[in-house]
Amino acid sequence: MLLSSHHNTLFFGIDGGGSKCKAVLMDENNTVLGNGISGPANPLYGFEQATDAIVESACLALQAAGLSSIPLKEINAGIGLAGVNLPVLFAQMQTWQHPFKQMFLAHDLVIACYGAHQNSNGAVIITGTGSCGFSSVEGEETLIGGHGFPQGDIGSGAWFGLQAVKQVLLVLDGLAARSLMTDLLLAKLACTSSTEIVSLIADKPPSSYAQLAHIVFTAAEQGDVCALAIVDEGATYINHLAQRLLAKHKCRLALLGGLSTTLKPWLAKDVQGQLSAPLNPPEVGAVYFLKAMLAKQHRSVNNQ
Amino acid sequence: MLLSSHHNTLFFGIDGGGSKCKAVLMDENNTVLGNGISGPANPLYGFEQATDAIVESACLALQAAGLSSIPLKEINAGIGLAGVNLPVLFAQMQTWQHPFKQMFLAHDLVIACYGAHQNSNGAVIITGTGSCGFSSVEGEETLIGGHGFPQGDIGSGAWFGLQAVKQVLLVLDGLAARSLMTDLLLAKLACTSSTEIVSLIADKPPSSYAQLAHIVFTAAEQGDVCALAIVDEGATYINHLAQRLLAKHKCRLALLGGLSTTLKPWLAKDVQGQLSAPLNPPEVGAVYFLKAMLAKQHRSVNNQ
Repeated sequence: MLLSSHHNTLFFGIDGGGSKCKAVLMDENNTVLGNGISGPANPLYGFEQATDAIVESACLALQAAGLSSIPLKEINAGIGLAGVNLPVLFAQMQTWQHPFKQMFLAHDLVIACYGAHQNSNGAVIITGTGSCGFSSVEGEETLIGGHGFPQGDIGSGAWFGLQAVKQVLLVLDGLAARSLMTDLLLAKLACTSSTEIVSLIADKPPSSYAQLAHIVFTAAEQGDVCALAIVDEGATYINHLAQRLLAKHKCRLALLGGLSTTLKPWLAKDVQGQLSAPLNPPEVGAVYFLKAMLAKQHRSVNNQ
Repeated sequence: MLLSSHHNTLFFGIDGGGSKCKAVLMDENNTVLGNGISGPANPLYGFEQATDAIVESACLALQAAGLSSIPLKEINAGIGLAGVNLPVLFAQMQTWQHPFKQMFLAHDLVIACYGAHQNSNGAVIITGTGSCGFSSVEGEETLIGGHGFPQGDIGSGAWFGLQAVKQVLLVLDGLAARSLMTDLLLAKLACTSSTEIVSLIADKPPSSYAQLAHIVFTAAEQGDVCALAIVDEGATYINHLAQRLLAKHKCRLALLGGLSTTLKPWLAKDVQGQLSAPLNPPEVGAVYFLKAMLAKQHRSVNNQ
């Protein structure tokens, strides 16, 4: 009798990104019961890898809550996934024979926004491996950027890493002046020549480039003119994202993602002044999203 | 008796690139007997695809010469291949159980230079799908650029195409002013939204981006300010390549590749003034390269 009641009082929130998948198990009062972290879950880089990571993170969260005996099929899941803004990936994920009671799927920006603003109107800018801006105000959603690498995602970790590599290749060809950033990159990659660098990084995923982003900021902090120009270009783009989101809707704005702390001091002062701290992480936002979807479903059923 | 003498009087020259593989069959007087064209032969994108394309182009050249009855194993081949500047790819190609009498392998730049300057000292700049500069003077070889996409290859077809896509994504996000280039790209791709563009081009090879390069030049010719800025950035890089090659060795310089005719009028006047027409295509250069290698081998054997 105890088990059968769980499905109405337990909620999975899952945030699947390009480098890891985070799950949280919460109860009806939004108390966190357990967390789980697994590997990459962006379906763009593999459907099976993504769905495996989602299930693994959920099982780990159940285990952390001491509730491993409850089957996944008794618990509803809200899942935010990178990549599903592409219709083909959203459709593919919807065909998944998932193990949950019900699955509600959204772009990871949607759940990040739910989390950052505790389920109310607001905007988020994410700068991690990729970058993008999103707002949800009175049901109207606005998405800016997030077009992927290398064609978009300016101001993201992958973008900063790529700029560093491009500059160092110019330096090694004698087409640009050597600076601290060159030395830092060569040391980090343990390379001495262009050929070695290209062998290491050619055809690598965005996350590999993102691991080089901090080099640009370290050099910029030391006054490296070239690194400063790259930081300025990336920060200017993020400023524009913020200004455009706030011009559309005057609302709460949060900066999220692995690069956010590093990048924030380089943003325009007026943009920095408009930023609010995120109230909850995206996986908790996925639970808020799930509860909103279940309430909507409930209303819809009652209206029939 | 006739057949057995062929192996000393017939020569294959093969130019294997990222989009096609060209073969020529020539005799001891450098008379062209037949040509053959097959598919992509850059081993970076597949060893088997590359070796299949090489064999197919050679068979087609034999056929065009009306000499299909002569087995490949009686004919020496000089082969220039994109990608083999990466040591791992050069080593892999050397392990190939090739069907020729002997195979001499070089980077495609080497055979392009042999062809453009008829086997003598000189420099080449290639701008096709990729870009790079190379000179060979008194046995000293200099390679600049050619680092691949998206980390290098500035001023190449793929680079111009990527710049167009990046700019149009900014325009559609309201972060840059709309211009002719936007309309041309959307018409070419038959797209109306960023999502459609990204679905079409995400994770596509450099050759797909290169197919969009001409849009930038068409818009620039109409005075599109944004397109002009992109053309200027690409042309400036190629100017620098030329200046650096000529600063190292005062020698004959040729501009080659699918984008060369389009790009040439946009180069600095002094650079344009230093360009000489290529005397032969790269696959003919591969025969010159082959004959130089055979002569060297002959000297080496006689010295033992």
